[in-house]
Amino acid sequence: MAAAINRQWLLASRPTGEATASNFRLVEAPLPEVADLKEGQVLVRHHYLSLDPYMRGRMNESKSYAQPQPLDAVMIGGTVGEVVASKNPNFAVGDKVVGMGGWQEYALVDGTQRGVLQKVDTTHIPLSAYLGAVGMPGVTAWMGLTQIIEPKEGQTVVVSAASGAVGGALGQLAKQRGCRAVGLAGGPDKCRYVVEELGFDACIDYKQHPDLKSLSKALKDACPNGIDGHFENVGGLILDAVMLRSNAFARIAVCGMIAGYDGQPLPMANPQLILVNRMKIQGFIVSERMDLWPAALKELGTLVATGKLKYRESVAAGLASAPEAFLGLLKGRNFGKQLVKLI
Amino acid sequence: MAAAINRQWLLASRPTGEATASNFRLVEAPLPEVADLKEGQVLVRHHYLSLDPYMRGRMNESKSYAQPQPLDAVMIGGTVGEVVASKNPNFAVGDKVVGMGGWQEYALVDGTQRGVLQKVDTTHIPLSAYLGAVGMPGVTAWMGLTQIIEPKEGQTVVVSAASGAVGGALGQLAKQRGCRAVGLAGGPDKCRYVVEELGFDACIDYKQHPDLKSLSKALKDACPNGIDGHFENVGGLILDAVMLRSNAFARIAVCGMIAGYDGQPLPMANPQLILVNRMKIQGFIVSERMDLWPAALKELGTLVATGKLKYRESVAAGLASAPEAFLGLLKGRNFGKQLVKLI
Repeated sequence: MAAAINRQWLLASRPTGEATASNFRLVEAPLPEVADLKEGQVLVRHHYLSLDPYMRGRMNESKSYAQPQPLDAVMIGGTVGEVVASKNPNFAVGDKVVGMGGWQEYALVDGTQRGVLQKVDTTHIPLSAYLGAVGMPGVTAWMGLTQIIEPKEGQTVVVSAASGAVGGALGQLAKQRGCRAVGLAGGPDKCRYVVEELGFDACIDYKQHPDLKSLSKALKDACPNGIDGHFENVGGLILDAVMLRSNAFARIAVCGMIAGYDGQPLPMANPQLILVNRMKIQGFIVSERMDLWPAALKELGTLVATGKLKYRESVAAGLASAPEAFLGLLKGRNFGKQLVKLI
Repeated sequence: MAAAINRQWLLASRPTGEATASNFRLVEAPLPEVADLKEGQVLVRHHYLSLDPYMRGRMNESKSYAQPQPLDAVMIGGTVGEVVASKNPNFAVGDKVVGMGGWQEYALVDGTQRGVLQKVDTTHIPLSAYLGAVGMPGVTAWMGLTQIIEPKEGQTVVVSAASGAVGGALGQLAKQRGCRAVGLAGGPDKCRYVVEELGFDACIDYKQHPDLKSLSKALKDACPNGIDGHFENVGGLILDAVMLRSNAFARIAVCGMIAGYDGQPLPMANPQLILVNRMKIQGFIVSERMDLWPAALKELGTLVATGKLKYRESVAAGLASAPEAFLGLLKGRNFGKQLVKLI
């Protein structure tokens, strides 16, 4: 069944400024023999590795909501795959599973710990979707929308990184609730996709609006009734421009500030608008509300299975390609959910 | 009863930068004769005028949550006084009332409009307190604390402008709920008062900490368990320092940003902390939740009547002194609730 070796990407060093390929190191580890599995353990062969912006934050030493990724350890990451060996009665060889297997081809998992490995049904939902629209990114969008933005029918909801896994789901969930959905994305192809494929009402190419005045004007045109809710993945200029166009009682869910991941200052230009517009700005982490995941996954799974929630994947081939694909993701070179196909 | 004239302060011009005395103009208007009162009208002689920071915002033309104060009209302001003539069955001569009578000695009020004039009981509560601890400032503190900060027993709550009408109430209400209350105020006298008279656990003299590093260190010392809730009256450096010391899930109620009222830029240095600490930052206006006032006033009135909520007043003498007292308030020269005594 398993090959004799398991290739892994370790974090070799922490970035100073931009992350680079030299921050990662590819190593080969021996695969455990089936006979060596301990009671409760499951050996999973990964089909897909998920690459997500949050990983950049974990590479830093600095204080954040999570422990930093340890040096010389396998990079953290969501994975889907197939059970290839099991000493756990809850998992059989051939089961499809989703977990946090990391940047490696196989993972040996203690299946007795609740929630570390979930069996998934691929009858109506592709396996890879459990890393995107029906996984952490989709739940992230669902949580920001339903718990912080709480949009009413007819309101306008804006999302940055709109062609990505989270942003794309956010806008479509807002449309499902009768809102006007407006995206921000980089380049005409992504913007066209966001409107024509995902069904957003409008999408602004932020690369055409490099200053606050221009971007604010573009938002005004795209949001003639102002902005009631915003889901922030980027921060910086985009957040400033959205605040200028926000209505009274606007809600901003802060999911990411990718513009500041390399350590550059990222001041908010006009915090007075929080008062002037009686805004709520709230940060959240999807993994801190596990109680909400079942409701989120139920809605997301139904929408994907019935074709009502669309998504796109950027698939890099082979574990070796993971660092370059990840660095491209941080620069917006991906188009849709960034995955690495391992098999 | 009434004198033949009613002196009034009008807004003569809008400030460019700092407000100055020349922005106001004192005029004399004729007092209506009792016989001229229309059905429902009440003539109130003001005992006290309230001066509050929000008035500075109203002097600007720029977009804000409220209509700007019109030029050449009587300056807006809360007042308490006594009914001196009435053609309204709900108000009798001699009744003590609170309302928004403005910067003038008398006000002719349409008493049929709900809420514009409220009778108050001065048996256990001094009349002037209805402009402070048992009025708009007290309710503002109550609302920010109970609706946004929502502190749990044992948590640490910080408030800027802690010796003022709002800040003083905020800290005492937090203490009532079993919290550690930490204030920021300008100068050793105010800080001593905040701790020794109002019962805060600590008070930081922000004038001794003119930069972010120093202020952040002072907050660390005063808040050994970090900051769970903050009530912001000032903005700028204070908000930045509080954010640096905030715990996970900290809540910041934004009531004022007096540091930016003159139009100077007031950027937030580290909005990334909203995400890192999963913070909630929310602006609010006390007049937009009139449904909450009865509950707030009930608690505040009981606390004042029983001596459990303390406050201090800065009283300027005579209507003529209003502009200078107001400009002093904006510079923190007041000590406690700023009033103008008119009778």
